[in-house]
Amino acid sequence: MARLYERVALIGLGLIASSMALAMRREGLAGEITGTARSAETRDAARELGLCDRVCDSAAEAVAGADLVVLCVPVGVMGDVAAEIGPHLVQGATLSDVGSVKQAVIDTVAPHLPDHVQFIPGHPLAGTEHSGPRAGFAELFENRWCLLVPQPGNDPAAIERLRAFWEAMGAHVDTMDAAHHDLVLAVTSHAPHLIAYTMVGVADDLRRVTDSEIIKYSAAGFRDFTRIAASDPTMWRDVFLTNRDATLEILGRFTEELFALQRAIRTGDGEHLHAYFTRTRAIRRGIIEAGQDTDAPDFGRMKARK
Amino acid sequence: MARLYERVALIGLGLIASSMALAMRREGLAGEITGTARSAETRDAARELGLCDRVCDSAAEAVAGADLVVLCVPVGVMGDVAAEIGPHLVQGATLSDVGSVKQAVIDTVAPHLPDHVQFIPGHPLAGTEHSGPRAGFAELFENRWCLLVPQPGNDPAAIERLRAFWEAMGAHVDTMDAAHHDLVLAVTSHAPHLIAYTMVGVADDLRRVTDSEIIKYSAAGFRDFTRIAASDPTMWRDVFLTNRDATLEILGRFTEELFALQRAIRTGDGEHLHAYFTRTRAIRRGIIEAGQDTDAPDFGRMKARK
Repeated sequence: MARLYERVALIGLGLIASSMALAMRREGLAGEITGTARSAETRDAARELGLCDRVCDSAAEAVAGADLVVLCVPVGVMGDVAAEIGPHLVQGATLSDVGSVKQAVIDTVAPHLPDHVQFIPGHPLAGTEHSGPRAGFAELFENRWCLLVPQPGNDPAAIERLRAFWEAMGAHVDTMDAAHHDLVLAVTSHAPHLIAYTMVGVADDLRRVTDSEIIKYSAAGFRDFTRIAASDPTMWRDVFLTNRDATLEILGRFTEELFALQRAIRTGDGEHLHAYFTRTRAIRRGIIEAGQDTDAPDFGRMKARK
Repeated sequence: MARLYERVALIGLGLIASSMALAMRREGLAGEITGTARSAETRDAARELGLCDRVCDSAAEAVAGADLVVLCVPVGVMGDVAAEIGPHLVQGATLSDVGSVKQAVIDTVAPHLPDHVQFIPGHPLAGTEHSGPRAGFAELFENRWCLLVPQPGNDPAAIERLRAFWEAMGAHVDTMDAAHHDLVLAVTSHAPHLIAYTMVGVADDLRRVTDSEIIKYSAAGFRDFTRIAASDPTMWRDVFLTNRDATLEILGRFTEELFALQRAIRTGDGEHLHAYFTRTRAIRRGIIEAGQDTDAPDFGRMKARK
């Protein structure tokens, strides 16, 4: 694979950035990889792991001379980071990000950027319940989708280069506008996460069932929720605060449906329940056929246990 | 492992029964395994797979001479099956089941049983999203819990034998009363399943996001819900109709919490959200430490893909 950028700067060195560093290395996509993180502990871990060619103590230093800069920090601090690095971005550099929300990132980041920068927001739909620089692995993006949200005035060549970059790391790439992205993600990610957090919180809080019972008997379904609800709290707080309207809209729909199903349970309407549960099976089949999950029972946990 | 029963009859030949047959075989727990299922297609599949020593066309025939009979049918039909087999159960036989609800099973099954039968309801907390006789595998119960719900007047030796039987198939065994079982399962299984079904239904029903988008972009969290929501519709309809009160109680608590979190999102209360999300992480840690799930990222899906 040909080198796509001379210098790639990763701002933030968590799960996504560390996976990007490892995937870029494997494919030889960057002449040099620089990186930085706010916490000294994270920077030290990145140095120890050899994730980047240079781990810098400041974002300004990391972006100096970079032709691609990727913001890999929680959505809530992207505006601050943009203000800090804006004056240091070189002519023609591409600035992208990996945030789970797009309109809010555009609103807070764009005002800090000089005109000579190509701002192309992005979002790789990949992750695990683990976080931090030690959680990364080069295969994270394989066969996952990365959504790019081009901005008015973007140079088509810059978009194509960023697309090629993600494809080289194993991802499929689609483009989308910010509002549609935020709605799609509210359905496929943000609402499910809030629901999982809620269910786990309820279980934890229930007086008549002990936590040790919850834990022992979790294999009956609950444990799948706990994986999602173990995701990074700061990242998710920011997601909900910045994709508020779409998330609340989907949660409103969810509550409406849940009430209808509760009513069916209360009134003993077995036909309604059966028809509903039959319909939802088809979606699972589609996801497996699209290669977005394994058909191995229980996600193949049996294999993972060994 | 010593033989524990001379003849074990499995009524219903789905995921659980077929896994039991394979595990019993492996461990040599039964002198003979008989089985039956209502549908001729299932019986034929069981014969083709060689799951049982004898696949019978009627439940009465399957239970003749059996010292252990296990009902592996949906909870909603257990009463009918009990009425059918009651007169054919031999002196001293143990009758158990694998239903996800216990009080309703006791209420509908017990009246049909002769006094000379040991009725010991049970529930192995194991399963996958797949169903039917071809879905079974001998390792399904390994390191999973099986809950027994002994009844007044049970012979302690019969309980111990059934415990040894489940332990020999790899399970840990606890005993519990029916009401507590039904509450614990409402939290760890029934409410999470209804919530997952609901979320998948909402996604499917949303006009502004296409099903193909939902499917392509599901890896961001949603796909975990679809696995649960792909579980057997008949089984789950019966669970909700027969564990109605406990399920509705937990769903009521869930809705209350969800409203509080929605309110935090609407008012921008980031501290509340962050504190909530931090608390739920600890539960996940407990489940992994208790050996009830893998710590491999994404449930070890990467391995399953290979």
